[in-house]
Amino acid sequence: MSTNVSKSVTKVAPENGADKSSACKVALIGFGTVGRAVAKILCESGNQSLQLTHICNRNIARKKQEWVPAGVVWTEDVDSVLDSDVAIVIELIGGINPAEQIVRRALESGKSVVTANKQLIARHGPDLLQLAASNGVQLEFGASVAGGVPVLPALRAGLSGDRLHGIAGILNGTCNYILSRIESARIPFSEALEEAQARGYAEADASEDLDGGDARAKLAILALAGLHTQLTPESVRARTIRAVDAVDFDYAAQLGCTIRQISRADLNGDTLFAEVGPCLVPSDSAFGRVQRNLNLVLTSGQYGGDMAFLGAGAGGDPTAVAVVSDVMFVAAALSGGRREIASQVLRPIVSSDFETAWYLRFFVRDQPGIVARLAQILAAHHLNIDSLLQKPGFEKNSLPFVITLEPCRDSMLHPALEEMSGLEFATRPCLCLPILR
Amino acid sequence: MSTNVSKSVTKVAPENGADKSSACKVALIGFGTVGRAVAKILCESGNQSLQLTHICNRNIARKKQEWVPAGVVWTEDVDSVLDSDVAIVIELIGGINPAEQIVRRALESGKSVVTANKQLIARHGPDLLQLAASNGVQLEFGASVAGGVPVLPALRAGLSGDRLHGIAGILNGTCNYILSRIESARIPFSEALEEAQARGYAEADASEDLDGGDARAKLAILALAGLHTQLTPESVRARTIRAVDAVDFDYAAQLGCTIRQISRADLNGDTLFAEVGPCLVPSDSAFGRVQRNLNLVLTSGQYGGDMAFLGAGAGGDPTAVAVVSDVMFVAAALSGGRREIASQVLRPIVSSDFETAWYLRFFVRDQPGIVARLAQILAAHHLNIDSLLQKPGFEKNSLPFVITLEPCRDSMLHPALEEMSGLEFATRPCLCLPILR
Repeated sequence: MSTNVSKSVTKVAPENGADKSSACKVALIGFGTVGRAVAKILCESGNQSLQLTHICNRNIARKKQEWVPAGVVWTEDVDSVLDSDVAIVIELIGGINPAEQIVRRALESGKSVVTANKQLIARHGPDLLQLAASNGVQLEFGASVAGGVPVLPALRAGLSGDRLHGIAGILNGTCNYILSRIESARIPFSEALEEAQARGYAEADASEDLDGGDARAKLAILALAGLHTQLTPESVRARTIRAVDAVDFDYAAQLGCTIRQISRADLNGDTLFAEVGPCLVPSDSAFGRVQRNLNLVLTSGQYGGDMAFLGAGAGGDPTAVAVVSDVMFVAAALSGGRREIASQVLRPIVSSDFETAWYLRFFVRDQPGIVARLAQILAAHHLNIDSLLQKPGFEKNSLPFVITLEPCRDSMLHPALEEMSGLEFATRPCLCLPILR
Repeated sequence: MSTNVSKSVTKVAPENGADKSSACKVALIGFGTVGRAVAKILCESGNQSLQLTHICNRNIARKKQEWVPAGVVWTEDVDSVLDSDVAIVIELIGGINPAEQIVRRALESGKSVVTANKQLIARHGPDLLQLAASNGVQLEFGASVAGGVPVLPALRAGLSGDRLHGIAGILNGTCNYILSRIESARIPFSEALEEAQARGYAEADASEDLDGGDARAKLAILALAGLHTQLTPESVRARTIRAVDAVDFDYAAQLGCTIRQISRADLNGDTLFAEVGPCLVPSDSAFGRVQRNLNLVLTSGQYGGDMAFLGAGAGGDPTAVAVVSDVMFVAAALSGGRREIASQVLRPIVSSDFETAWYLRFFVRDQPGIVARLAQILAAHHLNIDSLLQKPGFEKNSLPFVITLEPCRDSMLHPALEEMSGLEFATRPCLCLPILR
């Protein structure tokens, strides 16, 4: 849908925008792939309400980037960040140690925390949320599950009014890449794994992905945020995908199915049914159609019914979007409510002049020379015919047929349509529909 | 995914829950289908942080419901609601007059407003957001577009860190119902419309739906919330679906396509390309697969790439979820941050004992009696075979074949698997996968 869109967006700068001195100060701890992408978005966005003040990492001298504003402090010293006056700490170092201590100390010192740390939240989420609440600050972790799919923010903001009883998802991009590759190429598991490793979709030791450890940590977080249940990742059974082979896709296909690693949790009274592992799913189901390393999350609620969220599961940029969105959410709460919509509104020129391929359907009284006449008009307007379709079996006095055109702008097509509208053999106005690819 | 799940969820009541006296007071103006569903959720949820204090509607005496707590004031007098000490006004009367005046007066008197009013926000959203900001209160309208799909909250909370340049959606359930019915039954447009009207999916005068008026108001709201652009609904070209006929689905199918009403907006510099109308979309695309009255929204962002949201578009209950979610969001902001996760966490019994159908794949050294032996073991454990699959062309010394079982609990299956694991003809462990339908 985005072929005609440049990547730069002109924003009308808010006249009444807060100047940087009143901006919310933000520190970044961990400057790997996601950290760099977060810094880039913060620096590029021109967002006046956020100010990046610190970037903290080991061997920081080697990490410096030219595009980071001069005022930002580069440091290896976590203490100096925690002792500073930043309002929000972004934790992107991952793992439990020392991330847990850093997050606890930040919350205890009255700073809100945004983290993408799946293991930390899966293990200590309820504790840390309690600690945040008792210190009057916020802890957000929207990037910890399916980074590019805003399912956690949606659970928090858009589905909080429902009473969810089920969550199921394709939460591990590595497994989905491997399984959908075996499906499409019928290669052995080992070959699909090697391919995933060569393309950077799987680590050298992929056990955490293949055996379900990664997905069950994410499921524990989804269960916490969506089902309000607390469970340890270890309490969720995980089955490996290593035993799935090409022949299983042949048999699954005979059953109208394919195979995906599914993480699922269903709440029934005090019991949470939960597990992670390869499952047969119908080929034409939402799960069955998820290809490559995409993520899909389905929720089931008492009032709102079923909902699906699909998007990029991981990657630096999508994860960074989730992190920055959380930072903006916390900053808005700190300043007493959102204002981004009200303060940064563009009044665009509105145009319907899309460039697309076109479907033109005619009803005509059959007579010689109709197609020649239409083709002549189209040619005169420099419009290229892509195909001509005519089904048999209609009456000669009102015959439907179709011309499709190669992509052109609406404004190019319009004069030709005008000219064709007056043709004496037409029994109905031409129906003109865009073809979206 | 929800077959085994009861609809009642046991929540552990928070020990430290706020008592009702400190709860956020909420008034409901408009007590139609959505209003009743909102009141029901508020009354059933046991949410201690929200207190419904007023229900306002014309002919209120006829509207009273037994299940509403005795303390709630039933009134026809909007002024008494606006003069009260409620913190949040829920506006569900719809239309511009008198809704606009009520919303303005509520915001001016320092009350936050939650509304599902599409026409009001499409026309006056930017003004009203400005008015809310200048009065230090909030205006939320998550239910105004695709009620059951939390796309607006996701834009606000989960994608705010991205720079979106495109939004496209199936936003009108009536059109999608009619078009997908013509597609599946190849009936004339007029017959599909009559059917939709008979089933309550279309109004007697369905012009607003069929001719795109409804969808372009929603597109204007999505463009405001996601692309930060202000446009009037009337500036967006709308093409009717009335001219689409069964024969167009035949021709579309020849092109690998089907037909849907698509609303799309692409931002390119200062120009917003936008329109609403029937389009050809590939049959196997996300849009092509949306059936019945569901809604789908796709977003394209500079950093996060493409995202899809699918769910129920309308209906009292899904819309009410969106309204109540907005109310909870505003209430959380008023109380300085969320606390729902921290305060209402259930520690469930975690079980992997799902009831599903099963796929058992064996590799065996071929010899007589294998199937009989396996069938005997399964029968002894009261497990019913659903099908037996064997592909030709494998070597006799390691032959793969599959038995599928009718649904049973994991715990029923496990002892049989144990017994089968010791069989002398097995050359690999049995692979056992759930079949999800």
